[in-house]
Order: sequence, then C-alpha cells, then structure tokens
Amino acid sequence: MTTTDVKAYGTGAPDADLSQMTIKRRDVNPKDVEIAILYCGVCHSDLHFARNDWGMTQYPVVPGHEIVGKVTRVGNEVSKYNIGDIVAVGCLVDSCRSCNNCKNDLEQYCPEWVGTYGGYDKFLNAPTHGGYSQGIVVDEDFVLRVPENLDLAGIAPVLCAGITTWSPLRHWNVNEHSKVAVVGLGGLGHMAIKLAHALGAQVTLFSRSPNKTQNAIDLGADNVIISTNETEMEQAAGQFDLIIDTVPYVHDLNPYIGTLNTNGTLVVVGYLGPLDPMLVTVPMIMGRKSVAGSLIGGIAETQELLDFCGKHNITSEVEVINIQDINSAYERMLKSDVHYRFVIDMNSL
Amino acid sequence: MTTTDVKAYGTGAPDADLSQMTIKRRDVNPKDVEIAILYCGVCHSDLHFARNDWGMTQYPVVPGHEIVGKVTRVGNEVSKYNIGDIVAVGCLVDSCRSCNNCKNDLEQYCPEWVGTYGGYDKFLNAPTHGGYSQGIVVDEDFVLRVPENLDLAGIAPVLCAGITTWSPLRHWNVNEHSKVAVVGLGGLGHMAIKLAHALGAQVTLFSRSPNKTQNAIDLGADNVIISTNETEMEQAAGQFDLIIDTVPYVHDLNPYIGTLNTNGTLVVVGYLGPLDPMLVTVPMIMGRKSVAGSLIGGIAETQELLDFCGKHNITSEVEVINIQDINSAYERMLKSDVHYRFVIDMNSL
Repeated sequence: MTTTDVKAYGTGAPDADLSQMTIKRRDVNPKDVEIAILYCGVCHSDLHFARNDWGMTQYPVVPGHEIVGKVTRVGNEVSKYNIGDIVAVGCLVDSCRSCNNCKNDLEQYCPEWVGTYGGYDKFLNAPTHGGYSQGIVVDEDFVLRVPENLDLAGIAPVLCAGITTWSPLRHWNVNEHSKVAVVGLGGLGHMAIKLAHALGAQVTLFSRSPNKTQNAIDLGADNVIISTNETEMEQAAGQFDLIIDTVPYVHDLNPYIGTLNTNGTLVVVGYLGPLDPMLVTVPMIMGRKSVAGSLIGGIAETQELLDFCGKHNITSEVEVINIQDINSAYERMLKSDVHYRFVIDMNSL
Repeated sequence: MTTTDVKAYGTGAPDADLSQMTIKRRDVNPKDVEIAILYCGVCHSDLHFARNDWGMTQYPVVPGHEIVGKVTRVGNEVSKYNIGDIVAVGCLVDSCRSCNNCKNDLEQYCPEWVGTYGGYDKFLNAPTHGGYSQGIVVDEDFVLRVPENLDLAGIAPVLCAGITTWSPLRHWNVNEHSKVAVVGLGGLGHMAIKLAHALGAQVTLFSRSPNKTQNAIDLGADNVIISTNETEMEQAAGQFDLIIDTVPYVHDLNPYIGTLNTNGTLVVVGYLGPLDPMLVTVPMIMGRKSVAGSLIGGIAETQELLDFCGKHNITSEVEVINIQDINSAYERMLKSDVHYRFVIDMNSL
C-alpha cells in the first residue's frame, strides 16, 4: 500500500537519546482519520518503553500516546469526523472488536488490543509508532472528540493519566458520598485529585513530602496525610471507600489497606514493573477489603471523560516543551521534577 | 449475678488435650435465650485457638461456634423465640450495635464484635466460652432460627463454614450466569460448591488431588481442575467471575488470578495466619481483577442462608463424633482426614 513519510522523534536503542527520524504512516483506509499532531503528552511509559525497561521494546520506537491534533484527511466511510475537527488519540488504536471485553466497551482488556506505539499495524505490517511525530492515521473508532472550550496542551494528558484514574473512579462508583484517597502526586495523582473532586468526593492525598500539601489543596484535595507519619496513618484507619495508588515503583500496600473502610478497595494503577509487594491478607479479611488493578479505560469511557472535562473545565497542569527537550525532560521525570506533566508542542518538530 | 454451672470440654494450656471441665453461664437477662446444645461443629479455628496458634488465646478455652440446640429458657423481653424452638448460634454473640457496620447488618466487621468463644462477656466479666458444652446463654439478636426440615447435625457447620462462603457468593452477586471456582475441598470448600451450585452458577473445583474429582462432582461441581497441572491451568485462563479460596495455609494466589475473567475477584476466606502471599499485580491491572478478603457473615445474612438451606434442602456432609473423640478428631483434621466436617453430638458430654 502507499505510505506517507512523516517526521518523528524516537530512538533505535535502549541507551540512545531520542532524536529526529522519518517514519511511514499508512495511507488513509476507508474508516481512517489522518491527524496532524498538535500536542503530545509525555507519559512514564514512554520513557520505560524507549529504554526497554519492560523487555518488550522493538526498535526503532517512537513513543507518545497522549495525542491531540487536527483532522487533515478522512477515509470515504468515516462518519464521525470531518477535516478540521480537533481530535485526540490515547493508548489504543485498535482491538479485536469481537471478544466480550470489546463488546462491553472494555477494549483496554482485549487480549489483542493494539497499542498506539509498540503495537502491530496490520496494514503496514510493521510496529505502530506513537505521537512524537507530525501525524498519525487511526481508525475513527479509536479517535476521540475534544471539547472546544479546553486548552489543547492541557487536554493531552487526559488521554492516559486522566483516563487511568477516571476509569476506577467510575467503576467503583465514586460520587458525592465517597471518601477517596490518592497515593502519589504526579501526572496520574494530580488528575485523580481533580477528577474525584469534580465528582463530588471528599479527597485525601497520601504523600511522603509535607511540601506538597498546598499543591494538593490547590488541585482540589480536602486533606493531605503524610504517609511516613505513623500517627496520621493511624488516625486515618478505616476511612476510605477507594484508594487510587498511582506510585510508579515497588512499594508496600499494607499501610494503606488499614485506611480502607469496610468494603473498600485499593486500586493499583501506577506500577507495571516486574516486582510486587507482599500483601497481608488478614486486614483485608477483617473488613472485606480488596486490592485491585486497573488499566487505562475503554474508548467510550475516554470520550465520557473528555466530555466531563469539557463540562467541568478540567485539564491537566502541564509544562509545554519543544521536542528537542525530550531527553532532558525524561531525566527530570525520573527525579519527579515536573508539575505535573510534560506536553510536547509538536510544532517544534 | 447468679450463674449456672454447665459441663464443657476445653483446655487450660496450648499443649494439653481437651478434657471435661465445668464452666459458668450467665443468668438469663431480659433479652437472653438459654439453649441446650444438641450439636456443635468442629472448625479449624477451634483447633488453632485451643493451641494458641494465633497468640491470642486466654485459658481455659472452650471452643465451638457452630452451635445447634433447643431453647430451654427465655428472658422476659425475648420476642423472637419460645421454649422448645430449634435454634443456632454462630461465631458472634454480640457487637456494639451502633457503628456503621452494625447498622448495615455487617456485625462481623464491627470492631467490638464478641466472639462466641475467646470474646468477652460483659455480664460475667469473663471470657466467653463456646459450644463444646451443655448449654449457652445468648442475646436473642444473635440467635438464629433453624428450618424444621433440616438434619440438625448437618446444619451445624452452616453457621461458620457455610456463612463464610455464602457471604462472598452474595456480596459478589453470584447467580445463574456466574462462573465460580472454589480452591480447596474441605469444610468450607464443600459448602462453597453446594451453595454456588444451588445459586445456579457453573462451579469448578481447583484441587491438587485427582482423587477428589468424583466427590466434587457429587457435591455439585461441574468441573475439576488439577491446580498442579499447568496445561489445565492455562486452559482455564480468563474464565471465572469469582474464585473462593478456602485453603487454610500460606499458598501462592497468582496462578489462580490468571484464571479470573475481566472484573473477576479472588476472595480469600480460609487463611488467617501471620504469613501471606506475594501478589503479582500486573495481571490484576491487565483485567481489572481484584483480590479480596471476607469474614464469615452478618446475623441477617446468616439467617438468609439458613432459610436458603431449608428451601434447597442443603446441609453439610458431616461425620458425627462423641466429645471424647475431639482430640483425635483434631489430629485427623490436620491430615485433612474428614469428609467434610466433624460435628459433636453433645449428648455424649
């Protein structure tokens, strides 16, 4: 098939910096939308994937799955989008569409879902490449509509950091009667606070650093608990209906389980590495408590979130960078030196 | 207050056999029911408590919390029971009655719940003593009604083994569309199979021993998976909505998590010891799977179960013993040499 060359930023080896390269995008199929990328958020997964931290990377890799752009071309069977529309693409660009998960709008749990990068493009017969690029071609069923009132750079992280926290908030029925806690104040954590607050919940941040307290309050938290302070942790016993744990490295879940209410759930969304915590089950039994995992969200749920953000005027707090700054941005991310998400202005490419 | 001496079977030290002793029961308060005990089931907890395996036993201890008996006396404010009624008492004989858990019929999660043995009797100012005895005095709010059609020895284990598996079956909404798996075929496991089958679910037993297959089918299982057979385990991937894990010792939960469907839950009900499994969270994240704990059930839920057993003619499979055989029964329990629950005929005392 015919292809289009586009400029991109990626890497050919785990220890090499990202740099400019040219990649191929497939031609526009009847159901495809071609998008000129305006902004792309920078997720921790991008860094892990570029550096092969999970041992599954095929090189060259072009990261990026928090994509906002403008429609430049549509296939002749596309019904939802027109040229000029502002649209978004998240972590998924395809799935099998026939399994029970796909039928239930849970494409993120389809065993054959295709990642925006590191997946497999059946038309190109090649790995998919992500949003650190000028343009992308995606089936309209995996393209999302962006509310017109929102800042386009600020909406990009909603496509991964946002939906990753929104999906458990919705699945576990968070509402104005809920007490929600968030562990960690990074890209995911700050979105979890904003979204839980907008859903009417009482929101607490668990943090190791007292100097994040004012930031958390400004984002919508009602309270901050310093997780290294045993007295504060004891006073929080039995409080929370849902804890969203966004911490992206191995850590002990057990102290947080003590702060769950009867029937409460701690949901892990941030840590995807190979080593995992020892769980003490007795306190779980003594209050019918659960530990769960949750992965991003489905397409319909992501559109629901974008619409919710439009209605409540919610975007991510971002630091906009040029693509040439991506390698130093990765280093700053590793030091948690970002409030709260880097977003690449793709005009810089 | 006045007390009544009753014969009982208990022990004064962790390494001593159980033997006959005399204990005091409180006089009948206005809301109390006095019960002549006919049968008492033998739970693993009895053994652990008698031997101080959990480090919390106060001696002397009289175990037993699967009690069936006949009402012999009622206080002048008792409204639910009359002399001669066949009644039951489970693991709880009191709770605070004012916390949210108590208000929500979840007395088992009340921080101040009073165990049938090893609890604290505020009227006697002394530890509570269990059902290995001639009689017991219990507030009517913690007394249950036994359906008339059921075998009285067979109903005793329903009070702990039964409710411990019933409560998660109900909480996680098991019905005729559910696929349920049970880990372990002991006192709890065999009740889990019977109850899940009676709720209309498709039921699978996970077992290490192929020679339990026919027993499981006879109890109502549709299928048995040998958990040490990797091929069988792989074929079971992604199947179950709920797994009830009844295994009473440390074991690896991770292989079972692979057999959960999206949104599935593995609930631990059997293991209450101090050491716990390492949990690999990635497969949980990749299917929004949960690991939960669950503890017995509330009073209303236990009555619901007894009524369900009456309607479906369900009792436990039991081996009736004399109280003088309790020490050898404990030894046989440790070797899993029981099908599936010992029940003491208290006339032997």
